[in-house]
Amino acid sequence: MSRPLIHTPEGVRDIYGAEYRRKLTVEDRLHHVISSFGYQDIQTPTFEFFDVFGSSIGTTPSRELYKFFDKEGNTLVLRPDFTPSMARCAAKYFMGEKLPIRFSYLGNTFTNTSNLRGRLKEVTQLGAELIQEPSVQADGEMIAMLVEALKAAGLEDFQVSVGHVEYFKGLCSLAGLDGETELELRELISSKNFFGAQEFLENLQVRRDYVQVLLKVYDLFGPVSILGLARSLVNNERSLQAVERLEALYEVLCQYGVERYVSFDLGLLSKYNYYTGIVFKAYTFGVGDAVAKGGRYDRLLGHFGKEAAAVGFMVVVDDLMEALSRQKRLPAVDADGVLIVYEKERYADALKLAQEKRAAGVPAELMPAETDCRREDLKIYQESAAAHQQGQILYLDAQGRTQQISVKE
Amino acid sequence: MSRPLIHTPEGVRDIYGAEYRRKLTVEDRLHHVISSFGYQDIQTPTFEFFDVFGSSIGTTPSRELYKFFDKEGNTLVLRPDFTPSMARCAAKYFMGEKLPIRFSYLGNTFTNTSNLRGRLKEVTQLGAELIQEPSVQADGEMIAMLVEALKAAGLEDFQVSVGHVEYFKGLCSLAGLDGETELELRELISSKNFFGAQEFLENLQVRRDYVQVLLKVYDLFGPVSILGLARSLVNNERSLQAVERLEALYEVLCQYGVERYVSFDLGLLSKYNYYTGIVFKAYTFGVGDAVAKGGRYDRLLGHFGKEAAAVGFMVVVDDLMEALSRQKRLPAVDADGVLIVYEKERYADALKLAQEKRAAGVPAELMPAETDCRREDLKIYQESAAAHQQGQILYLDAQGRTQQISVKE
Repeated sequence: MSRPLIHTPEGVRDIYGAEYRRKLTVEDRLHHVISSFGYQDIQTPTFEFFDVFGSSIGTTPSRELYKFFDKEGNTLVLRPDFTPSMARCAAKYFMGEKLPIRFSYLGNTFTNTSNLRGRLKEVTQLGAELIQEPSVQADGEMIAMLVEALKAAGLEDFQVSVGHVEYFKGLCSLAGLDGETELELRELISSKNFFGAQEFLENLQVRRDYVQVLLKVYDLFGPVSILGLARSLVNNERSLQAVERLEALYEVLCQYGVERYVSFDLGLLSKYNYYTGIVFKAYTFGVGDAVAKGGRYDRLLGHFGKEAAAVGFMVVVDDLMEALSRQKRLPAVDADGVLIVYEKERYADALKLAQEKRAAGVPAELMPAETDCRREDLKIYQESAAAHQQGQILYLDAQGRTQQISVKE
Repeated sequence: MSRPLIHTPEGVRDIYGAEYRRKLTVEDRLHHVISSFGYQDIQTPTFEFFDVFGSSIGTTPSRELYKFFDKEGNTLVLRPDFTPSMARCAAKYFMGEKLPIRFSYLGNTFTNTSNLRGRLKEVTQLGAELIQEPSVQADGEMIAMLVEALKAAGLEDFQVSVGHVEYFKGLCSLAGLDGETELELRELISSKNFFGAQEFLENLQVRRDYVQVLLKVYDLFGPVSILGLARSLVNNERSLQAVERLEALYEVLCQYGVERYVSFDLGLLSKYNYYTGIVFKAYTFGVGDAVAKGGRYDRLLGHFGKEAAAVGFMVVVDDLMEALSRQKRLPAVDADGVLIVYEKERYADALKLAQEKRAAGVPAELMPAETDCRREDLKIYQESAAAHQQGQILYLDAQGRTQQISVKE
């Protein structure tokens, strides 16, 4: 018998039991760090007008958006990421604000991809945006906060790889590439397709020395010393200023004491077109993609009518959970509850006991016994209690006694 | 200049600042109570296959669902409520489980209504389901837990109105009404349209004494004593058993000590067709609709292939917030943070101070001073700090001093 009703659409899933309890714990830990930096929570609608995520914003391609209509015929979109919504809110509610604005968010995002690499179409993202703070200290705060948050979530072995889009853009400008060509080349470079990029540039008949430097970007990753090499390869102002910014950023990250989690990569380019300064991704083992991504986007808010600098990041919570799981670093879930199994005639006692436990901060679940239990019948309750993170079973038998039964792990 | 981009679609909204902080606090408090009863959190996808919410399930009408297609051409639906998803999960993951199952959930739901009464189309719901527990004790647990949760959220003056669908169904069956007719009559009764129901029944040529009893249902609300009157009006088995169940339920609610929050209403009928036993709604002043709704639905799980009794409720968090706001009973948000304003040359000191505060559990926000501040220039920071729930401003001036500035409320 087929039961199609019990299935979820491809790419989305249910999460329950210990797995979900762990996910909530990880979300709490990430959120706690971001709150401690003074970021204010904000909730935006799950769907917005199409234009908020349209092509001029430079976010997810239209074909990967879930689109539908409201009764007025407007095209609505399930948010593919939060950053454009945050930019919209900054413009809508803080148009006249001159001071820095700090937002944080937690919620699900949706991308209608058709690839079959097992990527989820609905993922939980938790992130932060620092708006109206153009300084390198703001860049540093973002990366340091990300490091602290990932550590708090239980991750130990990870690297935040930092680049700067202007280094590459300066080279493209020098080589005379137009915007369209630059986008195509960036696609090839960000997908680490070296030979594709080489062929592409040769077909364009770009000057040989420029080709060499553009392709050299692939090799410009590693510790802070790579910045000296990056500087020595260029003499255009945009690329040089990008290197200087990264050097200054490194100083700030040393002040935070997080430099050992940071490396540099001038070939790191985002698929999002709205980044204008630093870009960064946090990598760890156990998942194919970065568990967190971010960067500076000083022109995005202008689309919403407020000219303001901004830098932000987001953690893909589901990918982080996957990494923590493979690394066996998931948070422990406490067996802090009690399961109270009672014979029917003991209901009043069982209820009183449950209320006392709850008042004392101990979660208490009530369960009527199937029959007048013998001790060996209680095994089924042990399994239930273990699944529900309950450390103790109390059995109120028909003779007025309360038996304590251990929970098998 | 029009800025359409900064607007949200009709019926959805942004929530930020103190309002959102309060909403998160209320969610935490509700959730804490439900967890203390041993309910396990579960997260289901934001959208599901259409059939999960289809007409045979008896939930939201199709025209009020947000529908769209996936790349395979399946019709997907943004969930209008959680209960069918919970039933699906119980069938999918706990098919062989014999013991009671307790689920709780928190998330947003979507109904594409076109009425203009200012109802939100995206609302946050928090709820619980107790599956595979047909007893009156299970009914009692649900209502008692709802009362405790609403009290924990800060509500004081509210009533949970409890009915039983079988009382009305027993009368309809006796009067010979078919299912379709019963649904129409229920619509009229649940919208409190007395004269509409009277006319409807007269046109049907239902026996005069049955009409009188059916219309009498309107008056059957009030304290527990109303159950005696309800019993005296009927002699069919279904209606009588419904009254007996409510009387037994009242006993359980007395054992919980929550009876003063409970009244009865045999004209209380849900728009959801899946309820089979008790139904209840929590009313308070300040909002037009109930802030929480629930009931027993012993046949819903059968649609998903598992025959199991179930009872549940959900709180509409946004409506509860509205009620708390009008009643001036919103939770206080602590001014527990500190705003650290620093002159550029004091950055290192400011960062160190912020790190110390954060390590001590105090949220600390860093903000560069606009210029070398005079004391009167610091007013803008006082406003910012107040908006960010910060009780203290520390100003690190260019002379190496740290000044403490009070935050105006």
